[in-house]
Amino acid sequence: MHDRIRDARMLERVVTAEQAAALINPGMTVAMSGFTGAGYPKAVPQALAARMEAEHDAGHPFRIKVLTGASTAPELDGALAKVDGLELRLPYQSDPTMRARINAGELDYIDIHLSHVGQYTWYGFFGDIDLAVIEVAGVLEDGRLIPSSSVGNNKTWLEQAGKVILEVNRFQPAELEGMHDIYYGTALPPNRKPIPMTSPEDRIGEPYLRVDPDKVIAIVETNGPDRNSPFNPPDEASRQIAGHLLEFLEHEIKRGRLAETLLPLQSGVGNIPNAVLEGLAAGGYRGLTAFTEVIQDGMLKLLKDGVLKMASATSFSLSRAGVDEFNANVDYYRERIILRPQEISNHPELVRRLGCIALNGMIEADIYGNINSTHVAGTRIMNGIGGSGDFARNSYLSVFMSPSTAKGGTVSSIVPMASHVDHTEHDTMIVVTEQGLADLRGLAPKQRARIIIENCAHPDFQPMLQDYFDRACRDSYGKHTPHLLGEALSWHQRFVETGSMKPAG
Amino acid sequence: MHDRIRDARMLERVVTAEQAAALINPGMTVAMSGFTGAGYPKAVPQALAARMEAEHDAGHPFRIKVLTGASTAPELDGALAKVDGLELRLPYQSDPTMRARINAGELDYIDIHLSHVGQYTWYGFFGDIDLAVIEVAGVLEDGRLIPSSSVGNNKTWLEQAGKVILEVNRFQPAELEGMHDIYYGTALPPNRKPIPMTSPEDRIGEPYLRVDPDKVIAIVETNGPDRNSPFNPPDEASRQIAGHLLEFLEHEIKRGRLAETLLPLQSGVGNIPNAVLEGLAAGGYRGLTAFTEVIQDGMLKLLKDGVLKMASATSFSLSRAGVDEFNANVDYYRERIILRPQEISNHPELVRRLGCIALNGMIEADIYGNINSTHVAGTRIMNGIGGSGDFARNSYLSVFMSPSTAKGGTVSSIVPMASHVDHTEHDTMIVVTEQGLADLRGLAPKQRARIIIENCAHPDFQPMLQDYFDRACRDSYGKHTPHLLGEALSWHQRFVETGSMKPAG
Repeated sequence: MHDRIRDARMLERVVTAEQAAALINPGMTVAMSGFTGAGYPKAVPQALAARMEAEHDAGHPFRIKVLTGASTAPELDGALAKVDGLELRLPYQSDPTMRARINAGELDYIDIHLSHVGQYTWYGFFGDIDLAVIEVAGVLEDGRLIPSSSVGNNKTWLEQAGKVILEVNRFQPAELEGMHDIYYGTALPPNRKPIPMTSPEDRIGEPYLRVDPDKVIAIVETNGPDRNSPFNPPDEASRQIAGHLLEFLEHEIKRGRLAETLLPLQSGVGNIPNAVLEGLAAGGYRGLTAFTEVIQDGMLKLLKDGVLKMASATSFSLSRAGVDEFNANVDYYRERIILRPQEISNHPELVRRLGCIALNGMIEADIYGNINSTHVAGTRIMNGIGGSGDFARNSYLSVFMSPSTAKGGTVSSIVPMASHVDHTEHDTMIVVTEQGLADLRGLAPKQRARIIIENCAHPDFQPMLQDYFDRACRDSYGKHTPHLLGEALSWHQRFVETGSMKPAG
Repeated sequence: MHDRIRDARMLERVVTAEQAAALINPGMTVAMSGFTGAGYPKAVPQALAARMEAEHDAGHPFRIKVLTGASTAPELDGALAKVDGLELRLPYQSDPTMRARINAGELDYIDIHLSHVGQYTWYGFFGDIDLAVIEVAGVLEDGRLIPSSSVGNNKTWLEQAGKVILEVNRFQPAELEGMHDIYYGTALPPNRKPIPMTSPEDRIGEPYLRVDPDKVIAIVETNGPDRNSPFNPPDEASRQIAGHLLEFLEHEIKRGRLAETLLPLQSGVGNIPNAVLEGLAAGGYRGLTAFTEVIQDGMLKLLKDGVLKMASATSFSLSRAGVDEFNANVDYYRERIILRPQEISNHPELVRRLGCIALNGMIEADIYGNINSTHVAGTRIMNGIGGSGDFARNSYLSVFMSPSTAKGGTVSSIVPMASHVDHTEHDTMIVVTEQGLADLRGLAPKQRARIIIENCAHPDFQPMLQDYFDRACRDSYGKHTPHLLGEALSWHQRFVETGSMKPAG
């Protein structure tokens, strides 16, 4: 019955989700597990939401601050957003209900580099963490914890929180044990040492999370799956984007700038990265490595086929079919996957040392290579920067990918001026759309603009971009980065006013 | 006579500057020494400029590409810009003639994180380096080089250039010998190792630069000072800014977040950093360290007084009086100053490990904390990002400082939307003007806006900013980062059209 909780002291603390939720008070800062819809607590947040709703109905305010690893799922972000139970959320989220509240101005949201969250907590920049709610796959006899399907910030939450509630989820395969690598060598300045990793394959820590047993005030047993978003096969635009990128990588190999095993891949989540992974397999690559945040379905397949020899990440993000495949071959995958804390999976020191190839999506790029990863029309947040900055700034190659248009072709992903900048011109090397690829390395601003407009813009918007750039080159105040300030954001304004970036008529 | 050139092979290669300049051909990519006006070649570039002018007069095009460490001086950037001798310049410059050419669109300029330049060269992103022109303080019997008053990218230039011209400048004190620390442990991915430094005081390399003697095609003897810009005592606004920052640091010490020896200081160049340094001395600090790019006059004084126990940098930037002070006490300073390659002085791995306190200037901040460090009105480049991104992204604290107004009070340094973004909202912790300090740590966008407007804006612009923000909160498309797109850049546009951000009348 309690084979997942092997520590007798802990067994005594097993309670219901409702009992655990009753330990959370209004105004608390609560740190929770969860990263890309994996390893988040599933019962306590829902019980808490029910309690909040009852309190709100009784006229009592009840809101808390929630910190996680990254995005969670309807049972956490969705449930708490629905009852207006949050006053602050960080460092990343992707829930539609919560997004709507954030963009209505009802909830404060801090969008942070994922590698920074742990250390900012240690520094005290977010104040005290009153409580942590952490999903684990099991508790050892000595009280150490078998991590779940994501690690995220759990090491930091367990160490920094005043009290801890554990959710032990028996749905997570017991065979996860041994897959994680929790590095306990971090410290605060001035006591930091080099992180002793020189390859994504290096194990530098231990497979278990530590927790002070005296801090554990409740344990809740659960038995439920992760979010397990369905896997959508890549569409035509994604395949074209992947095709341009793969052609570029082949060219770099021919020029002798990349080895045939490339360099460790970082890959964002979604259709386009999956198309790139498929393309790598079709292209005959073998023996690659990944140093990334998330293991998606596409990566399992590459691991199985030997295209990838191993993958380092902080979380899974699998479909239900992916989970089945993982469970059916868990011994194989455990030898080839390492899950680490996100401060390590995204650490600038390691990303630069390993020389990653960073593949990230974007909302828009401007003609000079400034990238907007987070905001629609400069004001409405989509998800957040996530780890894209940790990787883009420090990688060997920083690639940003998007279809050249959105919303049925009415919105251009290449714009005169980015309406919000998450990655500056100083950090962008490659921009790819289904139209083509712009290699910006070693180019000055106007050279970048010419190649982005020519190679990446959709034909429906290309003449407008060229016209803007030509007039800017003629009339701009300064001609280093030519702009027409009265027009630079007019495409976004037109979109806000008319729903389209295309001029009327 | 030739006591600075102790290698007999090298002595045979001594030529005039004109003879050396004759070895440079049109279209070449030439890497030169020089960082913040120190350690740049002084004779060959001027001889080259004269040759270019003669060629141009004869109707022959003659332009080259020039890479350096950072800014140089009139004898290099000024001379080459005056004769229109450059087609490309990177990674940083501050020469008025060259700035004018860049902003007239006559010259391509690539503005790069200073820690990235070396590795991008090794990666081949800038193509082949045909020639290096490097100032040194001397040549040892075995051909190794005594570095000059800056190190910058010289290690990379000497290794990567096809041919090398040396300028041996006997004006640089012979006692520089032993002061430098050139780390030869770098490699390309996947062969990189941790950089073995855990304190700014660590020496991890050797005091000399290596060069393949077969590549040295000419040596020119010179005897001239560095740029040695005069040191301006801090003005009232700088002292006020420093006062706010020092009050903040004291508060952080009281809260237990900083020790009384602080953490390694990175300090930009100019009046405000000098005022901060003065304030640290006046505030009774002792035993501090600096891990920074540049040693200014103010740092010499702190080293002498024991406020700083040591400083690590890549370059000097001293006034003539500062040089005299340094030369008079060179044995004292040599024990307390380490000059390193800029890839090490600015390395993200080290900046994060050491937990620097990053103090940088800015042109403007917007109400959400996005920082413009490089462009006037979004289009006209001032100098460049330099190392500010290397430090701001990775430091324990990232502070941006500026007077709240410029150009006689007609331009606000706090604006609705930054007209160019060099440091994103994700990277900014503290904004300081003479009006006050905004501590943005742990704040969401609208919280940041309120505190920046209240604490940092000049009273002449504060009501306009508050009005913009209030209307944006009411009318913005999204209310996560409220903006009025049609107005967001109107202050800059007004400045371009009228010379002032203040409304007419």
